[in-house]
This record gives sequence, structure tokens and C-alpha cells, in this order.
Amino acid sequence: MPEIAFQDAYPDDLSRCFGCGKHNNQGHQLKSYWHNEQTIAHFTPLAVHTAIPGFVYGGLIASLIDCHGTGSASAKAYQQAGRELGSSPAMRFVTGNLNVSFVAPTPIGVELELIGAFIEIKERKIVIDITLSALGVICAKGQVIAIKMPATMGIV
Amino acid sequence: MPEIAFQDAYPDDLSRCFGCGKHNNQGHQLKSYWHNEQTIAHFTPLAVHTAIPGFVYGGLIASLIDCHGTGSASAKAYQQAGRELGSSPAMRFVTGNLNVSFVAPTPIGVELELIGAFIEIKERKIVIDITLSALGVICAKGQVIAIKMPATMGIV
Repeated sequence: MPEIAFQDAYPDDLSRCFGCGKHNNQGHQLKSYWHNEQTIAHFTPLAVHTAIPGFVYGGLIASLIDCHGTGSASAKAYQQAGRELGSSPAMRFVTGNLNVSFVAPTPIGVELELIGAFIEIKERKIVIDITLSALGVICAKGQVIAIKMPATMGIV
Repeated sequence: MPEIAFQDAYPDDLSRCFGCGKHNNQGHQLKSYWHNEQTIAHFTPLAVHTAIPGFVYGGLIASLIDCHGTGSASAKAYQQAGRELGSSPAMRFVTGNLNVSFVAPTPIGVELELIGAFIEIKERKIVIDITLSALGVICAKGQVIAIKMPATMGIV
């Protein structure tokens, strides 16, 4: 059976996110996967996603890091619970804090690679460090503090 | 003479940013202004900018904070230098670090307000604290460390 992306295992009503929802046809539809003990995702920005000409705008980089972080947190929570990814009840995470250091300009027109590493794992809080690279060079370093989605935001 | 938005004073070749460039027709075109000693911007997300249904996705919030921060830094640099906003040579800033705490879910479908306050002002580094509010409630608190754009990224 082919591996399913973390975000594609979200329930339908929680799959509308502009950054990663499979049902948001205008969004980025980022897809994250296991990469040994870490997690990985790839995304190629469009020309329109420009900051200064030739480089990717910071908002997109932040968005990719954010959605890779919350997706990775969800997958890790399922793994920790010994449950199949996507099984009910859904374990969806939201972002408490997002920190991004832009360590080098991110060139536009090439595929970006995000790698996530788990720093702290608790039932309701998972911290992930994420690097974003282009052509093998790290362009941004991020950290996502992911919080298990409260019931007030939807179905949990 | 009507007040010009900080971002609308960027030179044409530096006005392509997806978050705030006046020449990016598909982007957000965020526009920031002086608000006494602070800075202000407004933006109403579209339905497509969803995270969990009913709430704005974090990537857009990060993008708005980012572009309000770098725009505010540019305006402050002109002010500090006693120069007219937008006069040549351009003083454009890029983001060194972006930190966003999501303190409450941001409702979709209403106008968001960003307020920027200057924390540190140096010639090549300006730090801005930014709040993002909806309906008078602070939903996100951000900090942007803005760095004067290096010559390697374009015209400075």
C-alpha cells in the first residue's frame, strides 16, 4: 500500500487548510511523509510567490514550515499512541508558536525540501525543528510548537 | 497630498512581493501606514485562506506580520534619515527572524488589524513587535527582526 501523506489522512472537514488541505484547490496542498525518524516534504514555489525578484517570499516559507510542523505533530501523535494514521478520533494539531530564521535567500523556481526533527513530545504539545533547503543549501530554520487542537475549534 | 502606503513607495523592481508588492496582482498587496509613533495595516482574508473551518490559516497571519514588519522598518529608516519615503536610493528591508505566537484562533471573514511598535532601531537592523487583532481581540503576537537588504539581493 503506498504511503499516505500526513495531511491526506486528516478527516475531510479538517482538510480545508490553504497550506496543506487536500480539499483546498487554491492552496499549497503541502504533503509530508516519514523520513526515518524525521519527516520530509517537498514544494516548488511558483513565480508569483516572489519576494525580491529571484527569491521566495517569507510568508510562503513560514506557511510551509507551519504546515509541515503541525502535520508532523499529528503523525507523531498517532505513532506514539500506536494508532493507524488517520484513524478516528482524529488527532489534529494547531500552531502555538512559529519561529523562522531566514539564514539565506531562498531561490525561486527550484524544489524546496523540508526536514522535520522532533524536539519534545508530549500528549498535547509537540515541538519540531524544521530546516528548509534549496539545492542542498539550508535557507531557513524553523521551530513549530504544535498544540493538540482544542475541541472549541472543531471535531477532535 | 494623501498618505502613501509604505509598500507603495518601494521602487517598481522591488514591488513584486506576494505579500505586499503593488505589482503582484495575485498577491495580498498589504498596505501599511503610520499610526502616530506606531504603524498600522488592515487586511480581510478570503474564504480560501482557511485553516480549520472558520479560522484563518497561520501562513497568512505570518505573511501579514512579516510584510507589515519589513514595511514598517523601511518607513522608520527613511524617518530616521530625515528622508522622504520612497526617495532614492531605496531603503528596503528583508526578514532575518520572524516569530509568531498564535494566542487565539483568528476568525475568517472579518477585517484584521495589525499594529507595529518599534523595539530596536539601528541603521541595518530594526526590530518591530506586531499585534494582529480581529474584532478588537488580539489573535497573534509577532516580532520581526528586519535587516537592511544586502546588495546581493538587488538594488539598495
